[in-house]
Amino acid sequence: MNSPRINQERLWQTHLDLARIGALPDGGCSRAALTDEDRRARDLFAGWCREIGCRVSVDRVGNLFARRDGVENGHPPVACGSHLDTQPHGGRFDGISGVLCGLEAFRTLHDHGITTRLPLELIDWTNEEGVRFRPGLLGSTAFAGRIPIDRVLATVGTDGARFDAELERIGYGPAGAAPHRLDSFFELHIEQGPILENRGARIGVVTGVQGIRWLEVEIEGVDAHAGTTPLPARHDALLAAARLVDRARAIGLDAGDDARVTVGRMEVAPNSPSTIPGGARLVIDFRHPEGATLDRLEARLRQAASDAADSSGTRARIAKTLEVAPVAFDPACVAAVQAAAEARGLPSLRMLSGAAHDAMQIASVAPTAMIFIPCKDGLSHNEAESATAEDLGAGCQVLLDVLLQRAAKGAVA
Amino acid sequence: MNSPRINQERLWQTHLDLARIGALPDGGCSRAALTDEDRRARDLFAGWCREIGCRVSVDRVGNLFARRDGVENGHPPVACGSHLDTQPHGGRFDGISGVLCGLEAFRTLHDHGITTRLPLELIDWTNEEGVRFRPGLLGSTAFAGRIPIDRVLATVGTDGARFDAELERIGYGPAGAAPHRLDSFFELHIEQGPILENRGARIGVVTGVQGIRWLEVEIEGVDAHAGTTPLPARHDALLAAARLVDRARAIGLDAGDDARVTVGRMEVAPNSPSTIPGGARLVIDFRHPEGATLDRLEARLRQAASDAADSSGTRARIAKTLEVAPVAFDPACVAAVQAAAEARGLPSLRMLSGAAHDAMQIASVAPTAMIFIPCKDGLSHNEAESATAEDLGAGCQVLLDVLLQRAAKGAVA
Repeated sequence: MNSPRINQERLWQTHLDLARIGALPDGGCSRAALTDEDRRARDLFAGWCREIGCRVSVDRVGNLFARRDGVENGHPPVACGSHLDTQPHGGRFDGISGVLCGLEAFRTLHDHGITTRLPLELIDWTNEEGVRFRPGLLGSTAFAGRIPIDRVLATVGTDGARFDAELERIGYGPAGAAPHRLDSFFELHIEQGPILENRGARIGVVTGVQGIRWLEVEIEGVDAHAGTTPLPARHDALLAAARLVDRARAIGLDAGDDARVTVGRMEVAPNSPSTIPGGARLVIDFRHPEGATLDRLEARLRQAASDAADSSGTRARIAKTLEVAPVAFDPACVAAVQAAAEARGLPSLRMLSGAAHDAMQIASVAPTAMIFIPCKDGLSHNEAESATAEDLGAGCQVLLDVLLQRAAKGAVA
Repeated sequence: MNSPRINQERLWQTHLDLARIGALPDGGCSRAALTDEDRRARDLFAGWCREIGCRVSVDRVGNLFARRDGVENGHPPVACGSHLDTQPHGGRFDGISGVLCGLEAFRTLHDHGITTRLPLELIDWTNEEGVRFRPGLLGSTAFAGRIPIDRVLATVGTDGARFDAELERIGYGPAGAAPHRLDSFFELHIEQGPILENRGARIGVVTGVQGIRWLEVEIEGVDAHAGTTPLPARHDALLAAARLVDRARAIGLDAGDDARVTVGRMEVAPNSPSTIPGGARLVIDFRHPEGATLDRLEARLRQAASDAADSSGTRARIAKTLEVAPVAFDPACVAAVQAAAEARGLPSLRMLSGAAHDAMQIASVAPTAMIFIPCKDGLSHNEAESATAEDLGAGCQVLLDVLLQRAAKGAVA
């Protein structure tokens, strides 16, 4: 590979510098979209981009584009990026590393005075986390034309603030440009799971994103006195919920290594120690890369909810509250990532993304792929989220190599 | 039986009159202890008692005593009663019927000009429900000398108000008399369970109260991303909790008809659909009339918590947060209740109380028994709580008969 070496120390220092904005006591960050912290992160990032000669622009929903001209500037840019917003107790890498590795790649090109054939673009997508404004992935979804811009602008945040007013307030819109075409899009991200670490791989070659569905199950029993009601006479909603949780796990294991089945939210009513619960509500989150398997999982989970209710004298109402189809990334883009990892001698692993990412949305309008790097213990959405300088450097190098491979055939020094 | 007939219609009307205080839209009542509603209920009740010649007094914790003199007034009184406070969405019968049936018994004696040999006393115990001031049974526990009066007076309510200040504010203390001796105590109460209704019995002859223990189980796993973390790599605290709930049910069934095992409260953290829960906390409430069985249940439930944690890669911390020993009522008092029911031709059933009652505390200082009457579908702590005028009348009659049997050998007309 002829592309230059990125500067691992500079990349790490850039992470440290950005992590000061919205810093939390245990090493994490809190930067919800369109807050003052988001503004400061955007300002710092935009300044860095301008220092290396990029033109910075904003679209109508606040997505931030740093453009690096090439030779054939009429051609859509080869793009990379991710997001700078975080979870309320988020880390320093989720999303951020995708943006900062892009910046380090651009800085390396700048250091070496390289002009690519095609233009390049580095993107910070607005409100990926969906913490303040729901749903997440709002910026990339709007860019892909999958949600009306006006609906995004009218979104009201958890604090009552409107998206467009907040965008205006922090100085990033909403008078920006309409969406434009991309030649391709590459998103580097921490894996947010333990697979790379466990298998000793350093680069995840992401072939697609799992489909996600949510079944919301509401169980209706009868409140009754815990001391007086014999066990066989009960209509215990928590018992039904508990049986469903255990059964859902078994159904997930049965569907193979790629299946994910999780009950992460459960509420019990009236939630008093001496009252048999008459109500329970839970959400089953299940994911798989194949639609047909999702269908089978859904059928089995619905049956399990119904069986759990029957077994405890309660009734279950089931509603599907989320359905995201699986996404397969562009084979050429995926192959480019794999080839770059191999050329650098980095152990890689073809894998699926279990989490949703902006790349999922962009894949509908441009050839797309993702690069995963390991994160300690698979943790994310947690202040303890951690990636090493070496892994960040390796992922950044692969990203630069891929950008050059895609944009710079005939690159001129 | 020579005792006069109680007036069923008057008893029912008294229930309706009292239910206007703190009335809720669906037919229930909200009268937390020492609130303005409690004051109004006390004032109304005390007025009724004075109308029939009773002397009303208050002790230092606000327990209300309506004394009806007999012939031998140096002898401790034969007492009855229960409580007028309610759950936040309580009914019109839980506790209240025990007080109002006592009132109807006294009114009947008054109507017939009967003076008993021993004096009688009708008691409204303070703060039985434990909704505003914790724990429940505060008034009867203090009367029985099982908690220091000063500690009761210093109790701070869920709304930040102090017990003694509120007692003063509503005009019921805290300058009252010290506890006095009782000849005996009889508490009529709705069953709060379905057993009488299901077996077609009209009088529950309560032989004792089950012991109660609470195990609070805190499960510690690891928060992780629902989409990225393979099932075998998880440390899912909710999965452990769910398995424990199901196992606790089986352990309860295994311990026989008298065992009650309930998980009524569960909290999950962080309780987000797309995060594997790293934390879960639940309370296991278990009850049985025998201490040895409670010990065995406790050992099995502790083991089950530990097993459930092990099976899901989590850790369980277990704390016993409540332990109430079983109470056996006085055989002579119990026999008197049974004899009265039989003499009136009322189908009766010897049974245990699964719930705690003031009588549990009073049993430690005076011969005590309880009379249960059926309630619709076993419901209580619920606005839909319901008892029929006929069942109330039957229970009231048994109460009067028992009071006369105990107090009035040699009653003079």
